[in-house]
Amino acid sequence: MAFSYLDNLPVERAKELFINAVKEAVPIPDEEYVNTADADGRITSKGVYAKICAPHYHASAMDGISVKASDTFGAGETTPIVLRKESFHWVDTGDPIPKGDDAVIMIEEVVREGENVRIFSAASPWQHIRQIGEDLCAGDMILPSFTEITPEAQGALLAGGVINVSVVKRPTVAVIPTGDELVAPCEEPKSGEIIEFNTTIFSSMLKRWGCIPKVWDIQPDEPEKITAALKEAAATCDAVLLSAGSSAGRDDYSVGCIGQVGKVLCHGVAMKPGKPVILAMAGKVPVMGVPGYPVSAVLALQEFFCPVANWLCGRNENGYEFKDSATLCRSVVSSLKYRELVRARLGFVEGKLTAAPLQRGAGVISSLVKADGIIEIEQDREGCEAGEKVPLRCLCDKSKIINSLIVTGSHDPLIDEIADIAKRIDRDAKIASSHVGSTGGLLALKRHEAHMGGIHLLGEDGIYNINAIKSFFEKDEVILVKGVGRIQGLMTAAGNPLGIKDFSDVSKGFRYVNRQGGSGTRVLFDYLCREHGISPQSVNGWNREEMTHTAVAAQIASGTGDLGLGIFSAAKLYGLDFVPVCTENYDFAVLRSAWELPQTKMFISILRSEEFKKRLEALGGYTAENIGEVLQWS
Amino acid sequence: MAFSYLDNLPVERAKELFINAVKEAVPIPDEEYVNTADADGRITSKGVYAKICAPHYHASAMDGISVKASDTFGAGETTPIVLRKESFHWVDTGDPIPKGDDAVIMIEEVVREGENVRIFSAASPWQHIRQIGEDLCAGDMILPSFTEITPEAQGALLAGGVINVSVVKRPTVAVIPTGDELVAPCEEPKSGEIIEFNTTIFSSMLKRWGCIPKVWDIQPDEPEKITAALKEAAATCDAVLLSAGSSAGRDDYSVGCIGQVGKVLCHGVAMKPGKPVILAMAGKVPVMGVPGYPVSAVLALQEFFCPVANWLCGRNENGYEFKDSATLCRSVVSSLKYRELVRARLGFVEGKLTAAPLQRGAGVISSLVKADGIIEIEQDREGCEAGEKVPLRCLCDKSKIINSLIVTGSHDPLIDEIADIAKRIDRDAKIASSHVGSTGGLLALKRHEAHMGGIHLLGEDGIYNINAIKSFFEKDEVILVKGVGRIQGLMTAAGNPLGIKDFSDVSKGFRYVNRQGGSGTRVLFDYLCREHGISPQSVNGWNREEMTHTAVAAQIASGTGDLGLGIFSAAKLYGLDFVPVCTENYDFAVLRSAWELPQTKMFISILRSEEFKKRLEALGGYTAENIGEVLQWS
Repeated sequence: MAFSYLDNLPVERAKELFINAVKEAVPIPDEEYVNTADADGRITSKGVYAKICAPHYHASAMDGISVKASDTFGAGETTPIVLRKESFHWVDTGDPIPKGDDAVIMIEEVVREGENVRIFSAASPWQHIRQIGEDLCAGDMILPSFTEITPEAQGALLAGGVINVSVVKRPTVAVIPTGDELVAPCEEPKSGEIIEFNTTIFSSMLKRWGCIPKVWDIQPDEPEKITAALKEAAATCDAVLLSAGSSAGRDDYSVGCIGQVGKVLCHGVAMKPGKPVILAMAGKVPVMGVPGYPVSAVLALQEFFCPVANWLCGRNENGYEFKDSATLCRSVVSSLKYRELVRARLGFVEGKLTAAPLQRGAGVISSLVKADGIIEIEQDREGCEAGEKVPLRCLCDKSKIINSLIVTGSHDPLIDEIADIAKRIDRDAKIASSHVGSTGGLLALKRHEAHMGGIHLLGEDGIYNINAIKSFFEKDEVILVKGVGRIQGLMTAAGNPLGIKDFSDVSKGFRYVNRQGGSGTRVLFDYLCREHGISPQSVNGWNREEMTHTAVAAQIASGTGDLGLGIFSAAKLYGLDFVPVCTENYDFAVLRSAWELPQTKMFISILRSEEFKKRLEALGGYTAENIGEVLQWS
Repeated sequence: MAFSYLDNLPVERAKELFINAVKEAVPIPDEEYVNTADADGRITSKGVYAKICAPHYHASAMDGISVKASDTFGAGETTPIVLRKESFHWVDTGDPIPKGDDAVIMIEEVVREGENVRIFSAASPWQHIRQIGEDLCAGDMILPSFTEITPEAQGALLAGGVINVSVVKRPTVAVIPTGDELVAPCEEPKSGEIIEFNTTIFSSMLKRWGCIPKVWDIQPDEPEKITAALKEAAATCDAVLLSAGSSAGRDDYSVGCIGQVGKVLCHGVAMKPGKPVILAMAGKVPVMGVPGYPVSAVLALQEFFCPVANWLCGRNENGYEFKDSATLCRSVVSSLKYRELVRARLGFVEGKLTAAPLQRGAGVISSLVKADGIIEIEQDREGCEAGEKVPLRCLCDKSKIINSLIVTGSHDPLIDEIADIAKRIDRDAKIASSHVGSTGGLLALKRHEAHMGGIHLLGEDGIYNINAIKSFFEKDEVILVKGVGRIQGLMTAAGNPLGIKDFSDVSKGFRYVNRQGGSGTRVLFDYLCREHGISPQSVNGWNREEMTHTAVAAQIASGTGDLGLGIFSAAKLYGLDFVPVCTENYDFAVLRSAWELPQTKMFISILRSEEFKKRLEALGGYTAENIGEVLQWS
């Protein structure tokens, strides 16, 4: 094999290598003729000229009569003229002007006298006539080369007699998935089987970029088969994407196989996620080895393949750009070795566009769904500080961010239900929630990076939330809103095979699944331990932290844990047994400055709604007394 | 009929009436299940929850060995531990973690010793393991209601085991064209036949908005047939568009027919173009009578139907908005009776976004193709002054405007050819040309509303362009660039049946087709008349003004004129005879402040190119000596 380790080519250099090779190989893309009626969104391959004039005849622009203007000269209010039936013609809008006539008089200005008409003003030549070529003259260029055809342009082309139009041929792009462990999407994959969804993502992205994806069957990790697929693809398509195996590990055959069919320009770029990228040319056909992790794959395609797709489609090669900037909510550490692309949730808090970094794992596709934008940490930076302005690539309409409610705090599925109800009331509504635990939420409010957060923090005195609020905020900084009463309990396997009875069982050596420090459930755990005289650190599994109730439930359901503290709805979702321990107050802390925002008002009114109470009942494990009331805390 | 004249309902009121009726009739749109793989761009009809965890098993995040972390405790640089083959397992990235193991050690940190391995540091529990639910937990809401599904979301849905997803059903929209004079698109329509291109425009717009258009056959102007088509459409579709006949003229049956199948909410709105609009409900089905003129139709659909389409598709009802503003180049007169929508060409000249109004005829579809934006003159305004800031709806990416070269001046097809060459060099290049005649071009430069303009103005002394430039500009304001030598001559019917010999023939009573005042060709005409001792006003047709060479040629070709002054390429296009009269200098005046712009430099370099010379030869009638040279004029 030509490469035994990865390059670390700077992103811009790698892009340039690839696009320049493509431009040299394909200076002018192929063209084809299509029906103008089917050409919406296509790109012209050359200048398009009108074949006929529009209108193609002199047409009446009004309902009325057509006349020779010279016959009407001298007509006036006091000197009307009578036109005999031989010297005028009745015309409707759009009718051709009879030969010899050169003006139209509106029907409203004509008085009928038997078959004749009386007129009270002279017509000027060519009045109320749409002359030949008013819109387009035969020979006029309607559209230049490499221009997108819009619905209006389709109309102009048809008006100009152009019923077939030469457009850039849509490039076909082969997508070859590889990997022994891959299976087609299904509801019940077996252990070790990975659902192959990357080709679905790739296909949709390619279609959005104007290409025609051609998806190959999943190829096993066998170099001969992969090479054969590549050869076939390069011979029949305009570009090739080889999915997964692009790194330099044991089963990563991509670079070797690509080397068999073409010239490798680069293997490995200084970008994270997305490092193990292969860029190559098989003759005139660009070939890209795409990383297997979905987030790496999406970002690498946007960065390196989108410019190629644009070029092959007849557009300029410009790809995704960092046109905006945002204020970073939390510090991000990065490596000097890479340009790092960080998914972020955007918010407008107190007039500032803020970006809260999301999970960074390259396998976490849901992080790309939650992301409103991508921020960039340049290759020569070791990271960025909270409060710094960072380059931003918006993934959504920025105007929608202004209306979104930023909810940062403790995790509870009821927030997703509120977000769903909000969408059903106002389809533009957006509630962007991040799960950082109760304390994390209060810190975000303190930094003015969120509008509100759910909290359930038990004080030393056994009272919920008030103490925590007091220790963080001045009297007028936040408003505390009554949320739900929430039953916390121990989740354990269905049928309770270990015979868990109450909280004291956590000290019996079973495998406990803990929550992260700062979360309300962790605070409750520590409080309960103290009450039961248990040392938290002595609990088996104390070190193993999960971020949400459902994550704890999932561990127990999978058999890698025996019990964990959490809420009833999570246990119910996973069919676990639930041993109630106590009822806690899960309330909402709202930044005073956000209190009057329409999105906050909507949130509070949903809290108080019957629809929401129904959803709480369906989830189970909640009480809703005085929900939505403002609590006094000073 | 219920209405014998048009209402003049304010636009906002009419919109509100219509959308509120639709929202009441269809509070929640229909839903359907589609394959997740086909769901890109669709809108969820309800919240979508993960069915399985992703990953759905504990997976190795690295190539290496899986171990029980507790077996490794105590290992260090100086105290390595040997693991026997029974106590670890070889794993690749993505492999399931064998039961009992709870950590992965990277292959790089492992030293093989026969079948055993030696390790030099302890593993912490769950290191390098992608735990169950790291991405998504079963039961997590992946997307709330009424949210667009993106390629990334498709991936997350499949990862969460959602292989079918409930989405809003695409509404089907009936499009019924009416009119005896309409014919299907073709290259050779007969006189009086109008090419029916509106349904093509409507269909493409509807598809872009997420609807499925269903196009009916063209209906003749017979109320019974139109009513029958409406009934069938309202019974089988989710919305109905009835095209043309929506006014109150003789053959305008739409409102009567719509009244037969539903309730008319409004007939006639205070908007121009687009006044004769009918808004109605046939039970739960919105019905719109759309004006027949294409520009009126497009603007009325954007204004009134786009919000309805959005609502039926599961989006919010927001339609086209005036979000930007621009500085008006020329004053626009408007009526207090209407909100006027004016198509405009946008430009960035000296840092200011300017809007130059285009042709206002409601039939001129090409004006919508040339337009970069729509400006709005409010209903209570009698017009707007040049220099005023006006509300703007951008029709293109504003960033592209910055790069466009604004060429305003005399018409010549060579400018379109340069625009085409520019696109083939840089696909983002845009040359926006307006034909306002030579003098109009100089005035636009003087007002700093254009970067350059083509001029051919003959001075009293028989010298071209220099005098005109001197009379408008100070020495450093503009640069004059040598353009082409252009043969002007008399165009006349093929075979020259009238026996035109030279310019003096214009005084012989033939029907002359003149050019507008201020155009270089008009100045030349006046100069030649003076030379030949002819009084211009005495020429038959002196009053009849056309705006371009091709428009003059089109009139002569159609037989409504006998001769006209113009350039060879226009005569050639229409197969006319051409009697050469003189060669004139068609040069370019360039604003000094625009001289260094990249788009200006590209224009000049194209002028000097071989490719351009080839195109001039193909057009015919030009000389290209010293083309692109800067001319000294002070």
